[in-house]
Amino acid sequence: MTHNQQVLVDHLPEDKLQPNDFRLIESPMPEPGEQQILVATIGITIAAGSRAGLQGSASYAGTPKTGIIMNSNGVGRVVASRIEAIPKGTHVLAPTGWQQFSVQQQADVRVIPAHHNPLDYLGPLGINGLTAYFGTLDVGQLKAGDILLISAAAGSVGHLVGQMGKMKGAHVVGICGNDAKAQQLLKLGFDEVVNYKAPSFRDDLKAATPDGVDLYFDNTGGPILGAALFRMNLGGRIACCGVVSQYDTANPAPGPKGIPGLLVNKRITMQGFIVFDFADRYAEALEEINGWLTSGTLKSLTSEVKGLAAAPEAFVDLLRGGNTGTRIVRLDN
Amino acid sequence: MTHNQQVLVDHLPEDKLQPNDFRLIESPMPEPGEQQILVATIGITIAAGSRAGLQGSASYAGTPKTGIIMNSNGVGRVVASRIEAIPKGTHVLAPTGWQQFSVQQQADVRVIPAHHNPLDYLGPLGINGLTAYFGTLDVGQLKAGDILLISAAAGSVGHLVGQMGKMKGAHVVGICGNDAKAQQLLKLGFDEVVNYKAPSFRDDLKAATPDGVDLYFDNTGGPILGAALFRMNLGGRIACCGVVSQYDTANPAPGPKGIPGLLVNKRITMQGFIVFDFADRYAEALEEINGWLTSGTLKSLTSEVKGLAAAPEAFVDLLRGGNTGTRIVRLDN
Repeated sequence: MTHNQQVLVDHLPEDKLQPNDFRLIESPMPEPGEQQILVATIGITIAAGSRAGLQGSASYAGTPKTGIIMNSNGVGRVVASRIEAIPKGTHVLAPTGWQQFSVQQQADVRVIPAHHNPLDYLGPLGINGLTAYFGTLDVGQLKAGDILLISAAAGSVGHLVGQMGKMKGAHVVGICGNDAKAQQLLKLGFDEVVNYKAPSFRDDLKAATPDGVDLYFDNTGGPILGAALFRMNLGGRIACCGVVSQYDTANPAPGPKGIPGLLVNKRITMQGFIVFDFADRYAEALEEINGWLTSGTLKSLTSEVKGLAAAPEAFVDLLRGGNTGTRIVRLDN
Repeated sequence: MTHNQQVLVDHLPEDKLQPNDFRLIESPMPEPGEQQILVATIGITIAAGSRAGLQGSASYAGTPKTGIIMNSNGVGRVVASRIEAIPKGTHVLAPTGWQQFSVQQQADVRVIPAHHNPLDYLGPLGINGLTAYFGTLDVGQLKAGDILLISAAAGSVGHLVGQMGKMKGAHVVGICGNDAKAQQLLKLGFDEVVNYKAPSFRDDLKAATPDGVDLYFDNTGGPILGAALFRMNLGGRIACCGVVSQYDTANPAPGPKGIPGLLVNKRITMQGFIVFDFADRYAEALEEINGWLTSGTLKSLTSEVKGLAAAPEAFVDLLRGGNTGTRIVRLDN
């Protein structure tokens, strides 16, 4: 290998994201400096939230830029090392971005134990799993017996939230966008799944939650949040994890009419969170999640595409709802 | 006195409330039965939230009805008693409704100590004061040093919230609808007051909160909530007390665009509450509030009108923002 392949943000999307908002380039092979490693990317994950980073200054991802490597987490193999603790051959989780090779510092990587599947670090043992864990258990304060509703339930975070909910003794209702996804969620143990694209969605949601909802794990915002608000029980909680419905547009929809009126009437607590705020507790969470993975209690859904060149189209497809579980782009490295 | 005067809800408002949505009637003087008292109303309070009770089934006030006495809290003097513990001449707080005389049960009234001003029980020692107290200190978790923002700050609850905020060591910024109200709030000790009707409102709010907002006490919802969201600090709290901006209309506005996106980015917690949920702690709160009143630390703003016949117009005026402090209708009793 003498060259690196990279995908750049070519220009910021004006409304819906298009594959040609990105540009694939070849660049010189990077070389690790002192206390650095060279990582060959095995897989990158594409998260809907990254679309927010291409939007404007209102995002936690900061002001968007063009001409830079599209950012993402990835897992890879160390192919050259100038860090004693991370020898060649080690697998790491790192902010690789959309590129074949990257140079990393020790502080930015997590070393993956030899007996673990590196790709799990893009799903249940990565940001998705941690987000599901802290959002459900800490922010959402899930208790046994709760009725748990999840939007984007077949997504990278949602399918893990539902399984964690079942493990903790909740009754779990998912919302997703097609019947094939619904079938997969039922196989994972979800009690009910509702398709938000069905014309009867509001009635279906009502029928699926005859005793209301105690905790709503919201990945979408928008009209689905609006519908969920009407199903909330007195004193219910809403964990606000993401706003998938609003990322891929120049004109975000207004918020639901029920806010703040229904929050008052039903004494609802809505809380936004970002997983990074729980960084000092990642270790305890990962130990528990790894136990579930090892015992087979927690299953990871992924949908993979091959090759960096496929990443832009895979991102667009994800935003259109064409994805189940964690979307991974596999590289040939 | 051989007759009672009463104001009935004649029909439900179709859009904005009108004085002729109500009807003044004469009816026979009621007589107290066993274990009942007859109360001559001295004053009733009109709260914006009562407009929600005329709206539809989505309100905590239940399904609205016509042909019934308009409900409200009032204070009065016992003029006939068949309850030993509440002799004739006692002052009481009771759900009098808009009428000159009412029959009450012991469980529904609070006896007002002889040395207290009965009208304080429509303000700081009544629902308004309790709402301000629990909303600010319990739901809002106000701490010394916090920056506290209040909408409808010159209203029956808002002007008390601001004063309680100052007592607890917060920096207090109020939002109200005209400069005369703003002057009154500054006299009560508010640090800054912003007029939401000024074309420069958003800039003014930004200038008044250079270090952001830690706790927003929201009485309005709507566009003011939308503006406040952009001023919230990381980890900020929003206590949702009421939705004044949305009561007096057949078409409530959509929620702010920033929900739930800004809640996520800024890790904001929004919590709706109703004071009745704190009923088991009223006594401790009233003791503290009464101490503040007695020492002169807490001042009650009221705006009074005379006579039952003036109540409908006073209600309409309140919803248009024409009121400062607690709106009280005084009766000749």
